[in-house]
Amino acid sequence: MDYRHRKRIGVIGGSRAGKDALRAAEEVGRLVARRGGVVVCGGLGGVMEAASRGAKEAGGLTVGILPGNRPDEANPFIDLPLATGMGYTRNSLVAMNADVLIAVDGEYGTLSEIAFGLVYGRRVVGIGTWDIPGVESAASAEDAVERAFRER
Amino acid sequence: MDYRHRKRIGVIGGSRAGKDALRAAEEVGRLVARRGGVVVCGGLGGVMEAASRGAKEAGGLTVGILPGNRPDEANPFIDLPLATGMGYTRNSLVAMNADVLIAVDGEYGTLSEIAFGLVYGRRVVGIGTWDIPGVESAASAEDAVERAFRER
Amino acid sequence: MDYRHRKRIGVIGGSRAGKDALRAAEEVGRLVARRGGVVVCGGLGGVMEAASRGAKEAGGLTVGILPGNRPDEANPFIDLPLATGMGYTRNSLVAMNADVLIAVDGEYGTLSEIAFGLVYGRRVVGIGTWDIPGVESAASAEDAVERAFRER
Amino acid sequence: MDYRHRKRIGVIGGSRAGKDALRAAEEVGRLVARRGGVVVCGGLGGVMEAASRGAKEAGGLTVGILPGNRPDEANPFIDLPLATGMGYTRNSLVAMNADVLIAVDGEYGTLSEIAFGLVYGRRVVGIGTWDIPGVESAASAEDAVERAFRER
Repeated sequence: MDYRHRKRIGVIGGSRAGKDALRAAEEVGRLVARRGGVVVCGGLGGVMEAASRGAKEAGGLTVGILPGNRPDEANPFIDLPLATGMGYTRNSLVAMNADVLIAVDGEYGTLSEIAFGLVYGRRVVGIGTWDIPGVESAASAEDAVERAFRER
Repeated sequence: MDYRHRKRIGVIGGSRAGKDALRAAEEVGRLVARRGGVVVCGGLGGVMEAASRGAKEAGGLTVGILPGNRPDEANPFIDLPLATGMGYTRNSLVAMNADVLIAVDGEYGTLSEIAFGLVYGRRVVGIGTWDIPGVESAASAEDAVERAFRER
Repeated sequence: MDYRHRKRIGVIGGSRAGKDALRAAEEVGRLVARRGGVVVCGGLGGVMEAASRGAKEAGGLTVGILPGNRPDEANPFIDLPLATGMGYTRNSLVAMNADVLIAVDGEYGTLSEIAFGLVYGRRVVGIGTWDIPGVESAASAEDAVERAFRER
Repeated sequence: MDYRHRKRIGVIGGSRAGKDALRAAEEVGRLVARRGGVVVCGGLGGVMEAASRGAKEAGGLTVGILPGNRPDEANPFIDLPLATGMGYTRNSLVAMNADVLIAVDGEYGTLSEIAFGLVYGRRVVGIGTWDIPGVESAASAEDAVERAFRER
């Protein structure tokens, strides 16, 4: 149970997403878990839920940093829900609590998390997401996770 | 002193900026104040300070939502410093407390504020800033302020 | 409009309160405004509204640091509403943004603000409120405001 | 690894504390872990560290909700550090993320957490701490943990 020294990968993306994005997110979650990483996310549906489901299927740990003030708003694959009661302002905390971010698809909320990741000096890897200088583009879930675990 | 029904214009941009950006920000501040608007910003230097200086010269009111926990970290042109002690996480509050945002230049911190502005359904006008769908590009300070006060 | 160098007095207390508490809060607001102070509060009803009304009647400035994300939840006597979207967590910001706190009556929310005031090294003056070591008990609104403006 | 349905016990108290308080906190942590509970705390030293150490010795899980923005400021017995970058304002999140709070000794910071616990409708059990109506006084660590796990 020493999660402290495991790599924390923030998986960010919208609460609604298309099939391809959801599949990629689930695969990201699975691969992160297989490598012993912890999935950190916003705890809700869509990309967050897909990544969490993938991680749980592979026996990983999932942390959800929630906008609301009740842990039970977390999707069913979150092991550790953290309520903030801060709404979208919590996006900053998602970025702060990840060693690396993997962005999958996503709208403006995801863009705010990408921006915070870069503000905080985190590596940000993207799969079909915002094209922002500083975001490394990955060709697939495998590629993204490979990059995320690579030492810089 | 009824600031409540005045339009609040968030002026966002980096704490370091080039000459042109600073001149544009100062002009934005001045024009906002002349139209009776309140300048809301992050309260520090660079674009924030230039916009605040412009607003004060035109007799306007300036509100600075600060990252630190001490009001005196505000630039000298802030009338009402609001300390948050939340670091960059306060960027969300800058966007939340503006009716419209005008972004001038800016780096990743500004990008996070643009993103929050769009998340919160605010109109975002840009002068030489991030090219994000949803951000209206303005040709000048005059154009930006004109757009900001225009009804949607 | 140089509010920056005016003393900021946080007036804290419940959104519901009895007649005596409301009368005291209104008188506190009035006296703070007469001395040129700015009333900072949580922006809602009860003690917060009474203090704001008193301050406005005496021509003062009132700042409301709100729990929700919409400025229009502020009571009608708030000049400058600041939305936080952070719920009760904003209580910390109320204490942080006051030079001195005057607590009138109040329940657990007020207790949290008193505690933060003391954490932040603020002087806390109380009128019929929680009996906590470090809180100076005042006999009346006049006494409380007199103490709040007294140099320590 | 299903921490989601385990009871989360917030252990609150100062970062400095006397021998008796530290011993009680450690015993609280140990007993919470033995019953399958998760220890949630502010993640720093003193009472927080003692409770975390006790929990780890008994094989439990510890979550630290930190004031700073770096996970490595957590004490060595925290499994899951959560950085907030919000300073004392994070005290609200400690209370929000516990089903029950056990306060051991403590100063004003602890008082703010007790207050938030009561605001959020949490049961608060105290060992030699602030005497606030609504806080159940416990005679010992055993008594406190027994109360914390008791259904209300």
